Amino acid sequence: MNMLVDGEWRTDAYETTNEEGAFERQETTFRDRIEDDPDARFQPEAGRYHLYVSYACPWAHRTLVTRALKGLEDAISVSVVDPYRDEDGWQFTPEKEGCTVDHVHDADYLRELYVKADPDATCRVTVPVLWDKEKDTIVNNESKEIMRMLDTEFDEYAQRDVDLYPEGYQDEVDRIIDEIYEPINNGVYRAGFATDQGPYDEAVDDLFAALDHWDEVLADQRYLAGDRLTEADIAMFTTLVRFDNVYHTHFMCNVQYIREYDNLWPYLRDLYQTPGVAETVNMDHIKEHYYTTHPDVNPHRIVARGPDLDFEKPHDRGALPSEQPADLAAPTTDD
Amino acid sequence: MNMLVDGEWRTDAYETTNEEGAFERQETTFRDRIEDDPDARFQPEAGRYHLYVSYACPWAHRTLVTRALKGLEDAISVSVVDPYRDEDGWQFTPEKEGCTVDHVHDADYLRELYVKADPDATCRVTVPVLWDKEKDTIVNNESKEIMRMLDTEFDEYAQRDVDLYPEGYQDEVDRIIDEIYEPINNGVYRAGFATDQGPYDEAVDDLFAALDHWDEVLADQRYLAGDRLTEADIAMFTTLVRFDNVYHTHFMCNVQYIREYDNLWPYLRDLYQTPGVAETVNMDHIKEHYYTTHPDVNPHRIVARGPDLDFEKPHDRGALPSEQPADLAAPTTDD
Repeated sequence: MNMLVDGEWRTDAYETTNEEGAFERQETTFRDRIEDDPDARFQPEAGRYHLYVSYACPWAHRTLVTRALKGLEDAISVSVVDPYRDEDGWQFTPEKEGCTVDHVHDADYLRELYVKADPDATCRVTVPVLWDKEKDTIVNNESKEIMRMLDTEFDEYAQRDVDLYPEGYQDEVDRIIDEIYEPINNGVYRAGFATDQGPYDEAVDDLFAALDHWDEVLADQRYLAGDRLTEADIAMFTTLVRFDNVYHTHFMCNVQYIREYDNLWPYLRDLYQTPGVAETVNMDHIKEHYYTTHPDVNPHRIVARGPDLDFEKPHDRGALPSEQPADLAAPTTDD
Repeated sequence: MNMLVDGEWRTDAYETTNEEGAFERQETTFRDRIEDDPDARFQPEAGRYHLYVSYACPWAHRTLVTRALKGLEDAISVSVVDPYRDEDGWQFTPEKEGCTVDHVHDADYLRELYVKADPDATCRVTVPVLWDKEKDTIVNNESKEIMRMLDTEFDEYAQRDVDLYPEGYQDEVDRIIDEIYEPINNGVYRAGFATDQGPYDEAVDDLFAALDHWDEVLADQRYLAGDRLTEADIAMFTTLVRFDNVYHTHFMCNVQYIREYDNLWPYLRDLYQTPGVAETVNMDHIKEHYYTTHPDVNPHRIVARGPDLDFEKPHDRGALPSEQPADLAAPTTDD
């Protein structure tokens, strides 16, 4: 594994599993906040902030979905890295379909931005990165926090009147985001990157117990936190949309497909069909990234075919109670 | 890969993929026949022949199913190797659940039997092996031919009156066994052992086109060759029964599960529930073998959980026309 150590790029510095063969995710390191407060170092402005993402990465994907649902495309610009990540880490390959240049600094590698932000950086080089073009530094690289900032601090610049962290739902949203993280969002990685049977088995048990639980919850309510689409749904969505084509096979989370769940599958389609969301899903980047980037898991880097999922297929989730902001209301159809 | 070369065990002698990264299966080498003919070198007798099998291996499994359906358990004895195959090849580990000693020679490794049969053997060491205890040699190690011999040459010693290669069906049975071999039986291996994307894609295309075809055929007829259970069904069964738990994930044949097929899934359960068949299925050996024996495919040798398949679940295949010998008639139930 590779990372920055005192600002130097190292390809041998980092072990992702502990002695027992369990995957351990490292903490992210840039944790500043944009706040709508005249004393804040980082204040919301249109055109000032830039997102670095990979379409492949579920954490980066959260920020893209939030940006789309809020209508922040004009206010916050985006650069997209190559889905294939080799020893040099995430890189910019604008010649490749769906990828872009680094619009801010024209860097070749994402790690250059990390060193620019902190010449002595010691950390993994991950997406998403929220960059401040004015102070020329990283504001934050933790997806949950970027999602929250885009959601709550940029309403003045948002083209859609959508609140994904609404009053009356906030405790529940925070609770759910935390609750699904370990068994589901990170659980697929714990299963896939385990190097021993025990940690794998534990991850798979946790994962499918959690999926079964939420499938049951979603029988009676349209969204994870109740009648409103919230950040918690975004956090769930970016894992579910990758599941059947990647986590199921590549990470051996193969007890069942999401498309076999009575409620999770229509729920996933409901989210996918919410205006703005489909455009953030690049299944080619998703599949290429996982299958070609982890030779420890998939030595020949062959991209598995995977099931052909019809995310556009009608669902009947519209029959469940919901309080949708007009800007989110998707044309729903019945089966 | 390992094999015998001039009777010597070599672990570096054999490449399973060609220049284009496509898996190429080697020919089996012992091809004698047991015939009910006084001039034949190998004549059918009870107690004279012995089968070496692995519960894991779909080719060996064909011979076990045939032996069970015919009721040849008393006439033909069996030794079972360890499902885990390392650099030393198949071995006898009687201390392990489901495994046995080599009842004939008490060998440690299956390769010893090959050398005994031919001191200059140059070949892979595979199961099944049909051994002649009288002449102390291998009769045959090609599953299709062993299946045929057990089916057609041992009626005198069979405890059940079952013909799996019946008059009027023979051309069709031969045709189907050949037709399903390349896309299905061997197709899963071509997908799983491909080292390049092109051969993988081709194998997956062929495999699912063939599965889709047979799923359609089985909408209107109970068995592959029509109204009778035949050797063709056995050849299909041993691949299908491994599919969802092994080939689907380990060999990335992940377009869909067999359990998602309208007809293949009840067909698979129908065969499984045919008296005698269930006892030949050892899913623990199957899963252990594949996931732990191919580090090139699954480096950490973690056994994937896989779907929980209810092979005992009722099916309604009994509603389709069938001409069952009384000894094969399974109690069928409707969904």
